[in-house]
Amino acid sequence: MPGFTGGTLDRADRLRHDVDAFAAAKADWRARLLKLAGDTPEVTEDGRLGWASLADTPDDAELLLLGLDGGRPHFVAHRPGERMPPVRSPALFAALDQLQAGEAATYAAARSLLDWHARHGFCANCGSPTTIFRAGWARACPNCGAEHFPRVDPVVIMIAEHDGRALVGRQAAWPARRYSALAGFLEPGESIEEAVAREIAEESGVPIGRVRYIASQPWPFPSQLMIACVAEATDDAITIDANELEDAMWAPRAAIAAALAGAPDAPFLPPPPYAIAHTLLTAWTNEA
Amino acid sequence: MPGFTGGTLDRADRLRHDVDAFAAAKADWRARLLKLAGDTPEVTEDGRLGWASLADTPDDAELLLLGLDGGRPHFVAHRPGERMPPVRSPALFAALDQLQAGEAATYAAARSLLDWHARHGFCANCGSPTTIFRAGWARACPNCGAEHFPRVDPVVIMIAEHDGRALVGRQAAWPARRYSALAGFLEPGESIEEAVAREIAEESGVPIGRVRYIASQPWPFPSQLMIACVAEATDDAITIDANELEDAMWAPRAAIAAALAGAPDAPFLPPPPYAIAHTLLTAWTNEA
Repeated sequence: MPGFTGGTLDRADRLRHDVDAFAAAKADWRARLLKLAGDTPEVTEDGRLGWASLADTPDDAELLLLGLDGGRPHFVAHRPGERMPPVRSPALFAALDQLQAGEAATYAAARSLLDWHARHGFCANCGSPTTIFRAGWARACPNCGAEHFPRVDPVVIMIAEHDGRALVGRQAAWPARRYSALAGFLEPGESIEEAVAREIAEESGVPIGRVRYIASQPWPFPSQLMIACVAEATDDAITIDANELEDAMWAPRAAIAAALAGAPDAPFLPPPPYAIAHTLLTAWTNEA
Repeated sequence: MPGFTGGTLDRADRLRHDVDAFAAAKADWRARLLKLAGDTPEVTEDGRLGWASLADTPDDAELLLLGLDGGRPHFVAHRPGERMPPVRSPALFAALDQLQAGEAATYAAARSLLDWHARHGFCANCGSPTTIFRAGWARACPNCGAEHFPRVDPVVIMIAEHDGRALVGRQAAWPARRYSALAGFLEPGESIEEAVAREIAEESGVPIGRVRYIASQPWPFPSQLMIACVAEATDDAITIDANELEDAMWAPRAAIAAALAGAPDAPFLPPPPYAIAHTLLTAWTNEA
């Protein structure tokens, strides 16, 4: 199962459209409030998220409804003016390593929602300040009437395959020796398959034929939908775009399996387990 | 091939990052300008888009780069203050019926881009007016420095399957007798598979197990990425959400095949061929 999936909260869409039910949820003494320091969750010894009571809500905060667990409402607090850190901290990386799968999914929804509110306080249509509605899942403009909903930006992430080898690349900013799948934002007017072919061609010059979907995950930095695919290369000549990649190479299946297994003689370091590139490389090595 | 896919223009990402090359493209005497009346394209007798020369660009318009065809730049003109029509006109429906597949893909990119600029003239972060850069594929805020990129909203569109039948539904606003796949926006913190299961459960009450991806398409009204899937239902009891659906039913494969074929005794009218629901139903009937 890809990282940040498997959440168990009921998103309770009906509560978002019922202001009385939402008010009752906020008055429920059993309600829980997600514990965050900046964007870093508190993680219990058994890998679960830490929760407080609503009594701990800051005075200036608005409650956003994450969902229900057995009828018990779970919230995260949005404070106007509070920004998510632009860079992931070592404490956050440590927390992500410790969180159980479904718990990371709840965190992902909360972090994406908080970041969206922090950077979308004004109406893109007319410039006026907007207000939160639908239990935290929308903003409305009192001036022009426009409604705004949280962004989810689809990103294609993929390996090309050719003659039993997979195309992997590395960006200059990555940790030393790490290689991973190529990736890029899908644009208006493209299908998933077209975005995969375009991004591989732009970054590596490799021409693509058929594309097959493998898996997807939400990625909450800030709010991507990662769509993992395998693309059949029709030629293996590589011409990298140095603005995007520092290097790219064709790695045989055994080399990728060794990297995923953490073998000391593996030719590169793999992406972390909670990244869908890890899921993708694992699925591809298991295909043979 | 799904509708709105198969475009042949080279999006020429490199030109977006090179102001001199972009200026040269705008000065190229071979350059073409997309002909639009509102959001309706001109369609030639052989189903191709109509193009004018850049001499026809309105004085107050900015040129957005759609891409290159054999090195020849193709643009669409954005006029500040001009909105895309909120409702699709009969003339637009007629044009969509006549356009060749790849031509509709170029139109889709142009329409989504125009609509995004029309409704995103202000910075969501600080409320200031923004300006176009990257050859029309981004807006920048001169006040706070935020950069904004065109939205693409992922939508899951799916049938459930149970015992050789597919779950199809209809919305009250649709043409009489039309049934189609269910659909809904994917939210922050969800995978494709999770959004499919949630939306089916919300709209029809049907519980879902495994989900498989079928195909995708861009949908330019205004800027969705439609992700078509088949979901295995673990039970066939239907409880519709009357706010979303007027009706839902389990249709046997033969009934769906008859609807797609336009048989006079078919139990319902299918979605139009350029909608991916049509692709999805066709793929599913061909699976047996």
